[in-house]
Order: sequence, then C-alpha cells, then structure tokens
Amino acid sequence: MKIYGRNAVSETIKSGTTIDRMVVAKDADDAGAKRIIASALSRGIKIFYRDKEYLDREVSGKHQGFIAEITDFKYCELDDILQYAKQKEEPPFIVILDGVEDPHNLGSVLRVCECAGVHGVIIPRHRSVSVNETVIKVSSGAAAHIKVAKVVNINETIEQLKKLGVWVFCADMNGESIYETDLTGAAAFVIGGEGSGVKRLTKNICDRVVSLPMRGEINSLNASVACGVVVYEKLRQNLKGL
Amino acid sequence: MKIYGRNAVSETIKSGTTIDRMVVAKDADDAGAKRIIASALSRGIKIFYRDKEYLDREVSGKHQGFIAEITDFKYCELDDILQYAKQKEEPPFIVILDGVEDPHNLGSVLRVCECAGVHGVIIPRHRSVSVNETVIKVSSGAAAHIKVAKVVNINETIEQLKKLGVWVFCADMNGESIYETDLTGAAAFVIGGEGSGVKRLTKNICDRVVSLPMRGEINSLNASVACGVVVYEKLRQNLKGL
Repeated sequence: MKIYGRNAVSETIKSGTTIDRMVVAKDADDAGAKRIIASALSRGIKIFYRDKEYLDREVSGKHQGFIAEITDFKYCELDDILQYAKQKEEPPFIVILDGVEDPHNLGSVLRVCECAGVHGVIIPRHRSVSVNETVIKVSSGAAAHIKVAKVVNINETIEQLKKLGVWVFCADMNGESIYETDLTGAAAFVIGGEGSGVKRLTKNICDRVVSLPMRGEINSLNASVACGVVVYEKLRQNLKGL
Repeated sequence: MKIYGRNAVSETIKSGTTIDRMVVAKDADDAGAKRIIASALSRGIKIFYRDKEYLDREVSGKHQGFIAEITDFKYCELDDILQYAKQKEEPPFIVILDGVEDPHNLGSVLRVCECAGVHGVIIPRHRSVSVNETVIKVSSGAAAHIKVAKVVNINETIEQLKKLGVWVFCADMNGESIYETDLTGAAAFVIGGEGSGVKRLTKNICDRVVSLPMRGEINSLNASVACGVVVYEKLRQNLKGL
C-alpha cells in the first residue's frame, strides 16, 4: 500500500508503522522536506531518491515529492514472541533470518516454522524481503499464524536474547555437528540468506555455530530447506533428547 | 532443445532419448504421420496438437508438422542409481517424487538430496516437471552431481525396489512418527507434490508411512522442505542410530 503527500507520509513515520521504503523526489530539499527525511532516517527507513517523473508514475494523486510504501502485514515485537512462548509454557523457540531477500525463501521459512511450532521469526528491517503478497502466498497461509518481528539491528536482538537466557545458534558451515549439540531449552537459530550466509559479526556474537553434515559436492542448502532441517532437529530433540 | 522434421523426430523417438513433449500439426493425418504418432504414444510421450502456424512460430526451419522437445539433461536408469550406491559401499538411499510440478521445488529437492548424500532421485515421466533450465538454476549446480531417473510408472519402480530389499517409506500425514521409525539401511522415500500429496495407490504399496510432527495450524510443508527434513533425518540416523 502506498501513502503519499507530505503530511500523510510524515504522520505515518511518526506512528511507528513499518515503512518498507520511501521514495523522495530528488529536488525536494526545502526545510519541510529535510525534516521529514531526517525523521525517516532516524527510524532507519530506507529512502530512494528519484526524479519527479518516477513518483508521478508511482501514484496518481499529489505526492508532493514523498511516497511511503507500507505493508498490510502486521509485524509484532520481540516481546510479543517471548510473551507467546510464555503463554504456551514453552522455552522460547525463535528463528532469526539474516539477509533472506527472496520472497519464496521467506514464505517457505514461515511455513515450516509454523509447522514446527516456532514461536516467532525475526527479520531485519534492511537486507530482507518484507512479508509481501508473494511471501504470504508462498507461505500457504502460515503467515497469518506466525509472529514475525522486524528489527532494526539483528545483533542487538541477539544480545538481548542472550541476556534473557536464550541460546543463540548460528547455522553455518564449519560449526559443530547439529547432531552433537544439545538444542533443547530456550533457543534461537540464525539462518543466513542466499549466497553470503550469516554475516561474520553476527556469527561471532552467537553462542554456538552448528552445521549440518554435508555429503555432496555443492555443500550449500537453500535457506528455507536449511531452516526446515534445523527447526525440525530442535523439535526432535525436544521430543527425544539429544 | 527442439528437434523438428519427420525424420529427426522419428529417429529421436526410436533412440530412447527422453522427449519432454511433442507438438504435432493438427492436419498431420497421413500414414507417415500416424506411424510417428503411434510410435511416440507407445513410449508414453505427451503430444500436443496445434495449428501449423503455432509450429511455424516455434521453430524457424521446416518442421513438416513435427516438433519434439528434448532436454539436455542426461537422465539415468534406476540401475545406475543402485550401481552408484554399491560403488560407494552404502545401502541404497533414494528419493522418489510423486507429482512435483513446480521447477523451484524440484531444483530445491535435487539440491538438498545432493547435500545429504542421496544416491539418486526418481521422477515420473508424467505429472512431473522435467529437469529444465529453471530446475538446473534453482538446484544451484546440484543437478550436475546427482543422478535423476525418469520412470514411466512409479508404482512399478517401488515394487522393484521392495523386491531388492529396499524399504520404501511414504512421507505423508497420519503415518507413524519419523522419529520413532528406524530409517537406517536401504531406504527410498516417496515425497508427494504440491497440493495433493502422495497418490493413494502409491501410498498403499509403500512399506511404511512416516510423518513429521506438526505443531501449527497449517500442517503442510512445501515438498522440498519436507524432503530436506526427511533425508537429513535418515542421514542423522545413519550417524547416530534411531
């Protein structure tokens, strides 16, 4: 959904609604425009600067140089996820996605997480696809049943979780075998995106790095498949122990 | 790749090359045309009848009413898969796909199977996407390293495997928990396609039906994610036992 016009965009930013991206006309550099831009940047909103003609094509109404795209999907907060776990009387079971940009992958992750009883999925505000129409479609309805939190800084979220006693596991190459690692108890799993995997800094602050055994030539799994194997191994250990 | 012209198409059919589809001009009903069509049908090749104009657009050369699409991917035979397992001195570890029609799913299945050390994937000649350019791309190179056999009748293949002492597990709803089932030893896993799952007749001839525990509302996994969880559970049991 597109919000446009200075007042509307400005109010939307203030309301705390998640804005996926903002498009601002290149020539908007008066004091009023600068105030809106500063307010957006302070909230970590991604801004694209385009010619006025680009904005004219994007919306049919008067945009006054400002368009904000918001999604209809209702994101939650990390606290809501922790609260939900508490309510189910289960130790928190969380998935953190680092840079998954393919909507098919995100949809597929939401689907398997919902099936495995994950309490919530955390995605970064940047370097991640949002829960858009494609994601919702691919998730096969799961998006409506699973909590998704969008955070500004994944590393801060990881530190927060660690302080709360949640073990944070990074799923990546060259870690210890996931089948030799005790995953029972409060756990969050960081899954890397397409191509690059989990960022080094993020990997470094995780409690443990766990890997799946690789028996082939390519040794790299699709993010949603890797996520599926990992969350189901956690579920298996919950049922049967290590 | 497109083969066209009566001789070329006729010889391709006789050679046993896998033909994904044939397009035949609607008005091709002379004795020669009927012989080629009969020969194609006897090998289970899918034929589409189209106007001559359609064929003209498909290829730039003289098609004489016949076009056959073949894929560059080299399929193997069931025997090659069994031979490969023997060569690696491992009990056969096979995946059978029943009706996976989405190329992203097939590509993703090939990728996780290659990583988990599956010896080969079996797909039906019909009701399945072929290993096309999209599949190869999504498989992230795995398609070049994993054996894929295309069979006319999946149920016959299952019976064949059972006679050879391979346990055939159907992954579907309402089976026994995969975590309570011994998967070590020679095993083939039948994974259902999008939507419909494994066909009833196929399910009935499998040795066991195994299920993943479901903790959510939607209770249905994407075929490639389900396949990933299942083949990795087999690999885990190989390493650690039930």
